[in-house]
Amino acid sequence: MKQSQLFGRTLREAPAEAQTPGHQLMLRAAIARPLAAGLYTWLPLGFRVARKVERIIREEQDRIGAQEVRLPVITPAEYWRETGRWDTLEPVAFRTKDHGGHEYMIAYTHEELVMHHARNEIQSYRQMPAIVYHFQEKGRDEARPRAGLLRVREFVMKDAYSIDRDWEGLDRSYWAEYGAYERTFARMGLDAISVESDTGNMGGDVAHEFQVLTEVGEDRIVICGSCDYRANMEKATSAAAPGAAVPAGGPPARIETPGLTTIEQLQASLGRPAAAFLKTVLLRAGDGVVAVVLPGDREANEAKLRKLLDVPEVRFAGEADFAAAGGVAGFVGPVGLRARIVVDTSVEERPYLAGANARDAHLDRVVPGRDFQGERADVHDVRDGDLCPKCGGALRIARGIEVGNIFKLGPYYADKMGATYLAEDGSRKPLMFGSYGIGVGRAVQTIIETHRDDRGIVWPMSVAPFEAHVIALPMKDAAVREAAERLVADLEAGGVEVLYDDRGESAGVKFADSDLIGIPFRVTVSARGMKAGTVEVKRRDRVEVDNVRAADAAARVVALVGAERSKTA
Amino acid sequence: MKQSQLFGRTLREAPAEAQTPGHQLMLRAAIARPLAAGLYTWLPLGFRVARKVERIIREEQDRIGAQEVRLPVITPAEYWRETGRWDTLEPVAFRTKDHGGHEYMIAYTHEELVMHHARNEIQSYRQMPAIVYHFQEKGRDEARPRAGLLRVREFVMKDAYSIDRDWEGLDRSYWAEYGAYERTFARMGLDAISVESDTGNMGGDVAHEFQVLTEVGEDRIVICGSCDYRANMEKATSAAAPGAAVPAGGPPARIETPGLTTIEQLQASLGRPAAAFLKTVLLRAGDGVVAVVLPGDREANEAKLRKLLDVPEVRFAGEADFAAAGGVAGFVGPVGLRARIVVDTSVEERPYLAGANARDAHLDRVVPGRDFQGERADVHDVRDGDLCPKCGGALRIARGIEVGNIFKLGPYYADKMGATYLAEDGSRKPLMFGSYGIGVGRAVQTIIETHRDDRGIVWPMSVAPFEAHVIALPMKDAAVREAAERLVADLEAGGVEVLYDDRGESAGVKFADSDLIGIPFRVTVSARGMKAGTVEVKRRDRVEVDNVRAADAAARVVALVGAERSKTA
Repeated sequence: MKQSQLFGRTLREAPAEAQTPGHQLMLRAAIARPLAAGLYTWLPLGFRVARKVERIIREEQDRIGAQEVRLPVITPAEYWRETGRWDTLEPVAFRTKDHGGHEYMIAYTHEELVMHHARNEIQSYRQMPAIVYHFQEKGRDEARPRAGLLRVREFVMKDAYSIDRDWEGLDRSYWAEYGAYERTFARMGLDAISVESDTGNMGGDVAHEFQVLTEVGEDRIVICGSCDYRANMEKATSAAAPGAAVPAGGPPARIETPGLTTIEQLQASLGRPAAAFLKTVLLRAGDGVVAVVLPGDREANEAKLRKLLDVPEVRFAGEADFAAAGGVAGFVGPVGLRARIVVDTSVEERPYLAGANARDAHLDRVVPGRDFQGERADVHDVRDGDLCPKCGGALRIARGIEVGNIFKLGPYYADKMGATYLAEDGSRKPLMFGSYGIGVGRAVQTIIETHRDDRGIVWPMSVAPFEAHVIALPMKDAAVREAAERLVADLEAGGVEVLYDDRGESAGVKFADSDLIGIPFRVTVSARGMKAGTVEVKRRDRVEVDNVRAADAAARVVALVGAERSKTA
Repeated sequence: MKQSQLFGRTLREAPAEAQTPGHQLMLRAAIARPLAAGLYTWLPLGFRVARKVERIIREEQDRIGAQEVRLPVITPAEYWRETGRWDTLEPVAFRTKDHGGHEYMIAYTHEELVMHHARNEIQSYRQMPAIVYHFQEKGRDEARPRAGLLRVREFVMKDAYSIDRDWEGLDRSYWAEYGAYERTFARMGLDAISVESDTGNMGGDVAHEFQVLTEVGEDRIVICGSCDYRANMEKATSAAAPGAAVPAGGPPARIETPGLTTIEQLQASLGRPAAAFLKTVLLRAGDGVVAVVLPGDREANEAKLRKLLDVPEVRFAGEADFAAAGGVAGFVGPVGLRARIVVDTSVEERPYLAGANARDAHLDRVVPGRDFQGERADVHDVRDGDLCPKCGGALRIARGIEVGNIFKLGPYYADKMGATYLAEDGSRKPLMFGSYGIGVGRAVQTIIETHRDDRGIVWPMSVAPFEAHVIALPMKDAAVREAAERLVADLEAGGVEVLYDDRGESAGVKFADSDLIGIPFRVTVSARGMKAGTVEVKRRDRVEVDNVRAADAAARVVALVGAERSKTA
């Protein structure tokens, strides 16, 4: 491919909107261009990468016997209504209507639609296991599109769905996909770790995410330094620290705390550590009020609260709720509160200072279990140094990008949609379901974020838009041009994908663009090299250059490319 | 692939909704399944065909230097507003909004979006010619989805766009795509002819459609028997027949025609041929009334009227319009009418009988040009036997399916969107545009419609879901099973794509399914054959069977498949 004809121009400067180093490089290297917030067009260079990512995903899905299908993007409301997700997904979904007034969702995901086909196509136990998958656009009305292709409002997802007879079958399909995901990410150069995750709005219980650890990630991952425990913050738990025995002392005593409405103010005024206080957060859930009680040095985790309260969004209590519960804003405490009380598992049975439910007052020596009752639940954020729930080792928190997720959904969808099959024993049983997603664009953006230097992208060979970048310098030298074109032809005859910089630009511009675009091998045919009978070969990920005899250059590069390819085949 | 695991079951009977023979076979063979009117899911068998069709299209686009990109499905209103198509496409488009109230169209097509990228990426004449293309879903709210995948509401289109410096460049790109289309359709087994076509809502002047002639087609194609003139009815013209000289006679004379409001009634009552009458149709266009005058034996063509009147839809005049124009329903005529009068080119300068604009009366001996004036325009449907406008030969009408279209759009989009480039002479010039579409699903449905017999589909090798169908009979015979599995392994080692019918069904069911699915080669391993040391090989498109020595079977089928493949490589 001649670079002069390539649609999409490289940018000297990154547009102001670029938020992360990888976002800047993605735009500068003409990988994709936005049409609006979170809506991107793949330019030719980027689309070549996307296609290679797709191909790796497809090969690994095919390897475990998955069958490719394609469902539409415009999906009738009726199927979503069967599971209730027509309503629950509304805040993040794009909807449309036809001219007859029928309603549709731009598919946010495809579980309902696949389950609909499965209940029609699968009649007997003999037809399972079955895994189907497709690559298809998803529409998600994200409030905050972010970091280029990392979080967008439309993207192609490979979503796979397994359909099995029973839990054992589902388990086999789940771990087959797990293995496929490990191979898939490794082949595209992503160092992804699997972590336990929350099932969110998907239903089901067991789920894993594949996370690539990087500072630009927006997920927080809890990792044990001693064993293999790894979980998303939304799901992670910690073992209770063996608290020092603290004497309970006498009954709660009221102390005056005028104007001290925050933990920080109490700490400063009373000279006690944050852990000495209880914080009580009043929330609204359905028709009632819920009080969540945590140690003063802990944060509540929103995802855990959503799951516990079974609500799509966590909402704080309003004035009327405070009045009904008998709480006073800034001075809320669990003692005597008229509300459902949830006590976080990190709250110990020892004296705390808590709100008195009276203006400008707190209660000292409040002992949970003695002075107030409540249901125990894990609703806190794990933090650095907490103890691993599995081995007691120290946990640490890292940032990650979720590049894939897998859900063991079980009979959840079949039950809601009446999807059964005729079992071997003549009874009707629900279709057991699993769901498995990878976003193509996010994978590409993550590869850029984790494969770059200060001059540009450093593509892994397996997904590079081209394998060799041939540069002719200067183009106006006919002998150089001829030699470069011969080399391009020889490389292409050897099966190498070549981008040929045939532009009349300076060496500085050409080398800068080459580093920016990040093709694994740069091969320079120059007037100076021709005098010496050599061609310069340089790997994008190394500093040193290699001057190869011109006559051997094509064969050498074909061999180098082949060696590099074989590492991820 | 084992047939027992194939997702999607064949149907003994076609669902009642199936409208055409190909629609029935498409559903029965589990190619695709509807989720709603005009919204289909490709099942695994069908998706394999769709992917092969895609691959052929891609190879031919790449061959002419087109570059693959991918634009989103959700497209911001602002770009469509630049050309006015936000409004004009509304009747056939799906729209959506985000939660911030911004409006989007589910892309009906992608001209505006590609032109937007082109005006940003292309700055200089050096960057052209450029052809970009993508495979992407389109949403079209068709009032009448039809014949399975033939006319649907969502489908993947390969749409390509050429961007050139000038008309000469556009001409080269246009004919390069024309050639690519000829090769593309031939390779997928479609006998497509190119015809001149109307540009519809695309803008521009020159356009061709690629039509496959078949009775189930909904387009009417005009074909000259003597020269290469071929046009869509919407665009076709005919040469005026040399009318016999008819004496004009005296002035128009009123005759009483009580209750005779149609040409048929007048014919029956007066005993004259339909061609002896003028019919006058009153239409509404913008704020005015238009009277279209045609011979009594001619039909008006809606597309021609839309174009002439510059309206998205042709609407008949209402009561108020009749009153304003001085016409009487059933007795309208051009003489004395207060309206813009359009006289079709097929109206001759000779006496006709026309409405008198008075109840129960007509005027005899009305001579166009003498008794009334009007602008001349070609608004009639060509019919069998009309004369070719190019050579005077006889025209015939055939039914066709439009499988592709190409549009020479020129500067139309660049002018509306302010897309210019820096020309070699230092001036700024508009980007010259062309647009080129093929619908993947329609191509597949057309292949089915034109490659079938009464037992099922007869796939061309180039797009067949599999190349060989191995059938084991009976499966419970271990020796048969082993031999069949060895044969499958040998064929796959030889690069043949095999569907292996490993189900415990009867010979009748297996052969019926095999004929229905229509894989080019059927290879049967049976207990009877094993005794004779043979395997049965049968081509789907032939009646005779060939009993091949079992030891030679794999090599023979590999060779047969290879020979068939090479015909369309």
